[in-house]
Amino acid sequence: MREVFEEWRPVVDREIERLLPRTIDEAYLSEFFGSARYEYDSNGLQRALSDPVWNLLDRGGKRWRAIVFLLLVEGFGEDPDEYLQYACIPEILHNGTIIVDDVEDEADMRRGDPALHHISGKDVALNAGNAMYFFPLKILTHNPADLSAERRLSAYEMLMHELNRTHLGQGMDIYWHNKQTIDITEAEYLEMCACKTGCLGRIVARLAAIVTGQDDATEQTVGEFAELMSVAFQIGDDILDIETSDEDGGAFGKAAGNDIREGKKTLMVIHAANNASPQEVARMENILWADENTTEEIETVVELLYETGSVDYAREKAQQLSNDARACLQQLDLDPNVADQLAAFTRFVIDRDV
Amino acid sequence: MREVFEEWRPVVDREIERLLPRTIDEAYLSEFFGSARYEYDSNGLQRALSDPVWNLLDRGGKRWRAIVFLLLVEGFGEDPDEYLQYACIPEILHNGTIIVDDVEDEADMRRGDPALHHISGKDVALNAGNAMYFFPLKILTHNPADLSAERRLSAYEMLMHELNRTHLGQGMDIYWHNKQTIDITEAEYLEMCACKTGCLGRIVARLAAIVTGQDDATEQTVGEFAELMSVAFQIGDDILDIETSDEDGGAFGKAAGNDIREGKKTLMVIHAANNASPQEVARMENILWADENTTEEIETVVELLYETGSVDYAREKAQQLSNDARACLQQLDLDPNVADQLAAFTRFVIDRDV
Repeated sequence: MREVFEEWRPVVDREIERLLPRTIDEAYLSEFFGSARYEYDSNGLQRALSDPVWNLLDRGGKRWRAIVFLLLVEGFGEDPDEYLQYACIPEILHNGTIIVDDVEDEADMRRGDPALHHISGKDVALNAGNAMYFFPLKILTHNPADLSAERRLSAYEMLMHELNRTHLGQGMDIYWHNKQTIDITEAEYLEMCACKTGCLGRIVARLAAIVTGQDDATEQTVGEFAELMSVAFQIGDDILDIETSDEDGGAFGKAAGNDIREGKKTLMVIHAANNASPQEVARMENILWADENTTEEIETVVELLYETGSVDYAREKAQQLSNDARACLQQLDLDPNVADQLAAFTRFVIDRDV
Repeated sequence: MREVFEEWRPVVDREIERLLPRTIDEAYLSEFFGSARYEYDSNGLQRALSDPVWNLLDRGGKRWRAIVFLLLVEGFGEDPDEYLQYACIPEILHNGTIIVDDVEDEADMRRGDPALHHISGKDVALNAGNAMYFFPLKILTHNPADLSAERRLSAYEMLMHELNRTHLGQGMDIYWHNKQTIDITEAEYLEMCACKTGCLGRIVARLAAIVTGQDDATEQTVGEFAELMSVAFQIGDDILDIETSDEDGGAFGKAAGNDIREGKKTLMVIHAANNASPQEVARMENILWADENTTEEIETVVELLYETGSVDYAREKAQQLSNDARACLQQLDLDPNVADQLAAFTRFVIDRDV
């Protein structure tokens, strides 16, 4: 697994840099976005678009969405190098959602540095984030790899479907965040994850299927694979936040126990709310709802999540989703070597030993 | 003119309500966005999506983008009723940009009420605004009026082009807003308007051309018409803000002189910066840059804009753009009655006597 990441990550970064150079000028703007009617302020766009985007991208990120895309293309028997621009689409979209989510959540930090809106200002950050929603779709209009009209139309329609559901997921998550009572069902929680996180995964996989001309059944199965893996990854991430809550936990660039401070309604929290005493639930709801938390309060919730078996429950759920993802893989007629790498990736989402 | 608006506005509103009902449930969500994998929280989505969107839409707005779309469809000899869903696309996009812009600008008020983020919270407002960027594109995937694959692909590609340029326009505007010195050329200012405001106008017009199957030349000319009209409208709006700065100026639901308070670099301000003494320019830059302004300071800038002939200059520019828009109209083979109504509309953007 590690080798694949090390091989492809710089390739992906170079391609993103080709699509959105660190230094932009009139010639680039005209070529990528079309000629100005009057005259672009390329210096202004440098500051308002390229600088903030690269500020975020340079902080890291595994680019796993691009890399899974490229693996899938290879698995379908095509040359990944031909589809590099498409690989950047979900990666840029993902980083756009990070910027916007951080404004919505009033996040302080991102990947070890102040969240972008604290550096560029809320206005610049938000517009750059939103630009990153549409920028990758503009890549499609340039038609890299010379796709047929039919495939291009499929790609647009798929993207519109998934990007709409992404916003439903974020809408549910925000609504839950804004109320103290925890009365979310597990099915609703999984739907939120499937929409908010899973849809970007689905874009990765379905786009790989579409650009390489797979049939509809393959596109659906590979989409399901990526969704399941993404949801498993999300739950795995939430578990990690609890598990490392006594450590300094910088592994993923996030402060440990942060989800509790943010009042996040994770699968563990929902499970605990259904399995603890009314007094314990009320205490947990108060702690999650409070603007500030003491270390003791964080520990109280962490203990409750362990006592109610919620951490184990979530780990089993993530494991099951990861197993289901591998079952999808087996239904696909992928190059066996690639299938093995993708299967390893679904295990990584639980173990994080890459 | 007034009759056209009065006839179509309720029709457009009913259609938007069909697309996004005031009360949403699982059945609606499944039909519009596709089935849930697990289970939607339809109550949550009611609060996070439908309620905020309708809170804004119910405040008014002329729906002129939808109405110009329908007029153009009629002008091309087709039945507007068949394309009502498409008419809602630019209208929903426009209202999405309003929500997002208000967060970016930290606006207090919108259409006489507190800006949406002050009512729904920044997170809900932003996500609803962003959802309104993608929601209308989902309408296309439902393929109302049973368009050919070729027309649908053209529609997606056109939308991606224009929506990318929209974000360039907003990026330039924000960058200028964040610096005190006024060193913008008129060409850069017009480009910003052509991108930020003009592109939505172009979507209106080009979409009408695409769905009714006009040739490329017609699509380009009608797009140019709408862009010119939109930029003229924007300049007209800026002039109105200055002209009504001694009145209570509620006509457009905006506080008069507001652009000066917000430090907006309008065409008038740019013209004044090029035609006033260095001392006067420095004074104007200070006033525009300050967080708070006295009434006297507002009057100082208003007087400078008049003294430098900048208000007249901007009015002439708007008039010229409006004339150019009518020249585009004349190149088009539109139903004469419709062409007259559209020509009247280009005059309204200067006179606002509708």
